[in-house]
Amino acid sequence: MSKGTVVLAYSGGLDTSCILVWLKEQGYDVITYLANIGQDEDFEAARKKAESLGAKKVFIEDLRAEFVEDFIWPAVQANAVYEDRYLMGTAVARPCIGRRQVEIARREGAQFVSHGATGKGNDQIRFELTCYALYPEVKIIAPWRIPEFYNRFRGRIDLMEYAQKHGIPVPVTPRAPWSMDANLMHISYESGILEDPKSHAPDDLYLMTKNPEDSPSTPDLLEIEFKNGVPVKVTNVKEGISKDSPLDIFSYLNEIGGKHGVGRIDIVENRFIGMKSRGIYETPGGTILLKAHLDIETFTMDKEVRRIKQGLGIRFSELVYNGFWYSPECDFVRHCIAKSQENVEGKVQLSVFKGHVYILGRESPKSLYNEELVSMDVQGDYDPCDASGFIRINAVRLREHHRLQGLSSTKQ
Amino acid sequence: MSKGTVVLAYSGGLDTSCILVWLKEQGYDVITYLANIGQDEDFEAARKKAESLGAKKVFIEDLRAEFVEDFIWPAVQANAVYEDRYLMGTAVARPCIGRRQVEIARREGAQFVSHGATGKGNDQIRFELTCYALYPEVKIIAPWRIPEFYNRFRGRIDLMEYAQKHGIPVPVTPRAPWSMDANLMHISYESGILEDPKSHAPDDLYLMTKNPEDSPSTPDLLEIEFKNGVPVKVTNVKEGISKDSPLDIFSYLNEIGGKHGVGRIDIVENRFIGMKSRGIYETPGGTILLKAHLDIETFTMDKEVRRIKQGLGIRFSELVYNGFWYSPECDFVRHCIAKSQENVEGKVQLSVFKGHVYILGRESPKSLYNEELVSMDVQGDYDPCDASGFIRINAVRLREHHRLQGLSSTKQ
Amino acid sequence: MSKGTVVLAYSGGLDTSCILVWLKEQGYDVITYLANIGQDEDFEAARKKAESLGAKKVFIEDLRAEFVEDFIWPAVQANAVYEDRYLMGTAVARPCIGRRQVEIARREGAQFVSHGATGKGNDQIRFELTCYALYPEVKIIAPWRIPEFYNRFRGRIDLMEYAQKHGIPVPVTPRAPWSMDANLMHISYESGILEDPKSHAPDDLYLMTKNPEDSPSTPDLLEIEFKNGVPVKVTNVKEGISKDSPLDIFSYLNEIGGKHGVGRIDIVENRFIGMKSRGIYETPGGTILLKAHLDIETFTMDKEVRRIKQGLGIRFSELVYNGFWYSPECDFVRHCIAKSQENVEGKVQLSVFKGHVYILGRESPKSLYNEELVSMDVQGDYDPCDASGFIRINAVRLREHHRLQGLSSTKQ
Amino acid sequence: MSKGTVVLAYSGGLDTSCILVWLKEQGYDVITYLANIGQDEDFEAARKKAESLGAKKVFIEDLRAEFVEDFIWPAVQANAVYEDRYLMGTAVARPCIGRRQVEIARREGAQFVSHGATGKGNDQIRFELTCYALYPEVKIIAPWRIPEFYNRFRGRIDLMEYAQKHGIPVPVTPRAPWSMDANLMHISYESGILEDPKSHAPDDLYLMTKNPEDSPSTPDLLEIEFKNGVPVKVTNVKEGISKDSPLDIFSYLNEIGGKHGVGRIDIVENRFIGMKSRGIYETPGGTILLKAHLDIETFTMDKEVRRIKQGLGIRFSELVYNGFWYSPECDFVRHCIAKSQENVEGKVQLSVFKGHVYILGRESPKSLYNEELVSMDVQGDYDPCDASGFIRINAVRLREHHRLQGLSSTKQ
Repeated sequence: MSKGTVVLAYSGGLDTSCILVWLKEQGYDVITYLANIGQDEDFEAARKKAESLGAKKVFIEDLRAEFVEDFIWPAVQANAVYEDRYLMGTAVARPCIGRRQVEIARREGAQFVSHGATGKGNDQIRFELTCYALYPEVKIIAPWRIPEFYNRFRGRIDLMEYAQKHGIPVPVTPRAPWSMDANLMHISYESGILEDPKSHAPDDLYLMTKNPEDSPSTPDLLEIEFKNGVPVKVTNVKEGISKDSPLDIFSYLNEIGGKHGVGRIDIVENRFIGMKSRGIYETPGGTILLKAHLDIETFTMDKEVRRIKQGLGIRFSELVYNGFWYSPECDFVRHCIAKSQENVEGKVQLSVFKGHVYILGRESPKSLYNEELVSMDVQGDYDPCDASGFIRINAVRLREHHRLQGLSSTKQ
Repeated sequence: MSKGTVVLAYSGGLDTSCILVWLKEQGYDVITYLANIGQDEDFEAARKKAESLGAKKVFIEDLRAEFVEDFIWPAVQANAVYEDRYLMGTAVARPCIGRRQVEIARREGAQFVSHGATGKGNDQIRFELTCYALYPEVKIIAPWRIPEFYNRFRGRIDLMEYAQKHGIPVPVTPRAPWSMDANLMHISYESGILEDPKSHAPDDLYLMTKNPEDSPSTPDLLEIEFKNGVPVKVTNVKEGISKDSPLDIFSYLNEIGGKHGVGRIDIVENRFIGMKSRGIYETPGGTILLKAHLDIETFTMDKEVRRIKQGLGIRFSELVYNGFWYSPECDFVRHCIAKSQENVEGKVQLSVFKGHVYILGRESPKSLYNEELVSMDVQGDYDPCDASGFIRINAVRLREHHRLQGLSSTKQ
Repeated sequence: MSKGTVVLAYSGGLDTSCILVWLKEQGYDVITYLANIGQDEDFEAARKKAESLGAKKVFIEDLRAEFVEDFIWPAVQANAVYEDRYLMGTAVARPCIGRRQVEIARREGAQFVSHGATGKGNDQIRFELTCYALYPEVKIIAPWRIPEFYNRFRGRIDLMEYAQKHGIPVPVTPRAPWSMDANLMHISYESGILEDPKSHAPDDLYLMTKNPEDSPSTPDLLEIEFKNGVPVKVTNVKEGISKDSPLDIFSYLNEIGGKHGVGRIDIVENRFIGMKSRGIYETPGGTILLKAHLDIETFTMDKEVRRIKQGLGIRFSELVYNGFWYSPECDFVRHCIAKSQENVEGKVQLSVFKGHVYILGRESPKSLYNEELVSMDVQGDYDPCDASGFIRINAVRLREHHRLQGLSSTKQ
Repeated sequence: MSKGTVVLAYSGGLDTSCILVWLKEQGYDVITYLANIGQDEDFEAARKKAESLGAKKVFIEDLRAEFVEDFIWPAVQANAVYEDRYLMGTAVARPCIGRRQVEIARREGAQFVSHGATGKGNDQIRFELTCYALYPEVKIIAPWRIPEFYNRFRGRIDLMEYAQKHGIPVPVTPRAPWSMDANLMHISYESGILEDPKSHAPDDLYLMTKNPEDSPSTPDLLEIEFKNGVPVKVTNVKEGISKDSPLDIFSYLNEIGGKHGVGRIDIVENRFIGMKSRGIYETPGGTILLKAHLDIETFTMDKEVRRIKQGLGIRFSELVYNGFWYSPECDFVRHCIAKSQENVEGKVQLSVFKGHVYILGRESPKSLYNEELVSMDVQGDYDPCDASGFIRINAVRLREHHRLQGLSSTKQ
């Protein structure tokens, strides 16, 4: 008698292969689900592996286009950055993966979902909040939080032994001394030797970006065109290449950013559960887009709308980082941010060179920039005398404050 | 009969020299005041020029050390960045200059202060709010906002003619087709040919930083040590150089940052008076410090304190940009931010290369980072089962929300 | 030769009658415009007066319904309160009045608008920002800021003399020793004897609300029904009266609130121009609605949406108080707030008695309140063990913080 | 062999008496701890009961003075209100109780603390976060979250049976059909028949305040004097009574507020764990103080400091409600708020009548209110022409916005 059906987020690697077999051992029917969100993976090999390990069904889903349009684009609109630095390539991917997993679970009548995320990280939360929000009755099996599981598999050696015993193919190449999460938006590196926050990352760690020391000695010049705050076209000005579908645009920005070593950061961040952790990230295309979007946004958006929107963007980033993509508040904030982007339209020219992105110029049919108004050479419809009144009224309060302080210091 | 004494913020250039003479013409006694805040200037020549033009007294004041300690350091603590990009080298300098000008005016019994800032910019506001706050009874003469002045001097040619007529030395080198403001922290460029927001800045514009295309092909490796959120020492690890006074530290960071082309930005920003303007800035040392401070701060500061402090830092930046350094609210925010920095202590290692700053590692005696707690290999004092409860309680609200939405969609 | 046409916001009182005549004296054609926003006024007498004083045209416009629907309702959705206390009856009315004035000016081809607001207050700003936003080319004549005007009319006596000289009817009843602004939403009292902030307001000041000492000794019981965050029906439960158009609802709430002395406040507030001023307000209907809306909103809105919306509501209040109703940021905030109100629906029961509003109960088809979930007697779909994990994870950070503090205190 | 020593927060009631006995049954030594924070309790009877039930030690601690000074006063400074309505009488008391419990546990060498809070509420969190923060190694026994306990005691009947079996005195008076939490600051009522959010609270529910229908028909007139944002003296102006120690002041305000029926609210609030719950509260003295503090604060605090402080106060309220009194962020916020109160000094006169508090006037040696500056009758050091410039500069942005919109609508 089966205990029920589990849809397991399956990566094809050792951990989730062991989980697959272990779940079957526990009496579950297991459906594996592998999302293609742009990671470098042999999906067909993973399919065969899952089948050979007894998966009842195997789903391999290409989510790349919806990952860009439904998840990365809203992050671009928000200038989403966690704690001033992290562009959240992993945080943005989790709800995308979880959404489809829940769809499969509902369609297949599975009461359970499972994943291989650890018990100290953010991903378990992002994953499970997505599942609970979209499928409130679902039951979640998180083996790395189940004592019978984590006490049995205390280290990689235990997994290897179990794999050999159960005919699970064991990786032949030695594992990197850190863990990694890759998708279209970024690769993250953490754990292992990186846990020492003062150790420098090894040179050969990065897979998505060139070392700026070895990157080309001439820049690429790009023009990115935005509409409603999202890119609708990217052009390599010198090479005459251009792209205009979301997936193509983002992939091309990754290519150029990667070639020039853009988007590497090494940070300590605060996890939702209250620990500090050290993470290294490379986000080439996302970094270019962040810079370009910031530029066109400030160019076209009213100053005060921008201030309010900046606060909403920070809130959005915290929500996404913490796993609340599918929450009423994140829906609300996304709606507000999208509204703010209605006039964020125009073209930004930038150069990409040696790990850095340089904004060179911008133009827009919707800009609030008024060359005549701001000109030092033309007075235009602006009376400088008004500024005197403006300043003096702004000073009323400051002078009153001083008056009081003067009085009190006189008295002493 | 003199109309009174004016302390004029004097740069030594054509504009303020004409203002000096014009003020005398209007019947004022003029004291000139030239602050050395690190700009490249022949101060002795300026002194002689002012004297020859009839200044009653000439003050030339070296404010570089207090500029760093009293103004740049609080900005470092705040991670002060206006509109996500501008490090505010000009905005931070104005209250420093204004404070001394007011001291001189009070000491010399001058009822007036004057300056050469234009009527469309931010600097007039920053300057005058400082004066009104610190010397509430002062009267301000802003010639570029006085019709008799600005109607007489409609362009540079009018100034040149006036200069020739009044024996004011006229600059022999042709002026750059933009305007510039330089100090220890940055150089800003705006106006003239830069007013077209899509035109690219010419290559020869930058004076403080090398073009990254021509900068050294090997990085410099620095270690910056912080205490109370400000740098107390910088060491060039390979070259064995180190600096430990505020002015030396900042100057050395400018040198290294400048050598590697760090800190160039080209932006459109929103002025306080509600115009958008295009500015190009280079802030080499400040950019290095911002990155390093962000790193050590996140490493040592509690997550939730950081969130609140981030909001205060944004507020601080807006206040400083708008000219409210000397205001009760900016005092208050500075106090709160300084309080937040008590544990911001430790060392950051970073490399500077080709226009970019790469954080490599950090250490601190005050860090909240707990390597054992976060380790994937050690369980430590952490029970992964707790995370299940944490997630499920966080999901209570999300599931309720869905329940309601499910009900309403069922009804339809 | 006329200098052009002015649309003057005309109240029928002494000040604006003098302004009318004075403007004509200056050579303008004057159109008077009097908005009926619910103040107690003899509109026909005002019309005749304006005509007799030489107004080229006289517009008297009943804006009461649009005042409620377009201005008060958004304030209700926002829980708009300035500085925690003031419900902004005047601030909300100004853009309503200004919008129509600008429509008339455009329609009549008038290049000028004028008003009788003083030069120290908020209303001049609210009024003029509305005009500049909706009619950017308009020229504004604010006599109380024009030296020739205010130097001529230094006190009420000067106005009286001028009136007598120019056949302007002079009020026969003595003026109250304070000034007043009345509309459907509130009456405000300020200036005169109220300028001393420690003096108590005289008993006979209030016109819209009964003194609670004399108000009925039995409460009225109301039920207010909301949809999209605005009231759609009010029912007096005991008396069986009900109202369902916006104007009727608001007027009825004023009647009941007034009868029971609800909504009186005596405050010192901070004007936009940086002065503190003392104001006394009575806002009977608005106060009842604020309490009722807060209740239904918290009942139906997600907790975290509420937190974000609370911040937006505060921002909205500041914007409206400062006169920025017609600004891109206020448009944006209003849009966001309206979005947040989609589920704010249901009925609130409350009693009104002796100056106070008591919420008694509420119900809603859209509530997120789940009686079973929260019940102490039923466990429902809630596992109390989850709370242990929730608390322990929330404590991770607190314990780390203590660990560090413990270490540092040990070292000392 | 004892399993160790538990310090049990003991109320003297049925629940914690059963827990006491049950803990002993489980093999623990039990120390009972009963905090006197102003609730109406026979403390000596409770002591005897605890002793008779086998408590190893019994601590009864009078915390009233420190409750007022260390917990209520900071809440007054913050204008602490959760979700716009709840004054948090319970939330503020929990860290006060927990702090002493942890002190006792440390002193007595107890490894465990225990309490009778339920598994769905906020109090378990407030209590336990306090304990974890101040005694990170402590172990917490929360019986209402332990399956063996809550499955054994499914209702009151089970507790009664257990009590009878173990010689625990059983209450003779029937229990109210709701639960209650009382302290010096407030009484809260929830659960039972109150769980239906539309049911009205019964008239006889309130114990701390008179029904305003039956309260005196003449007001009491109070003057409250503040220093550093906290009351230092209260005077009943007509009766000539005055109090000046914190506990006396607060108790007297409770007496007057209670006599006049002040501070009753009936709300639905959002618990930290994401449920909505209905609560009824009466906070007589706290309500008077909130109104008075708001008044003196606005009177003496700079406008912009106030805006920033308002945001911090909201954050403080959320933190306290959620149980984070002892957290780095709450320490930080409290420090900032205390700083903001340095000039919050002066006297407020108010009347208390029929459930409401009316502010009548205020005075302060530190006020920023300038009667001459704001006067309509005196011009003072204020040039009304400045306001024209102020308004026109504020309109620059609005007019630009319109210009763009006009352009785009023309094009369509």
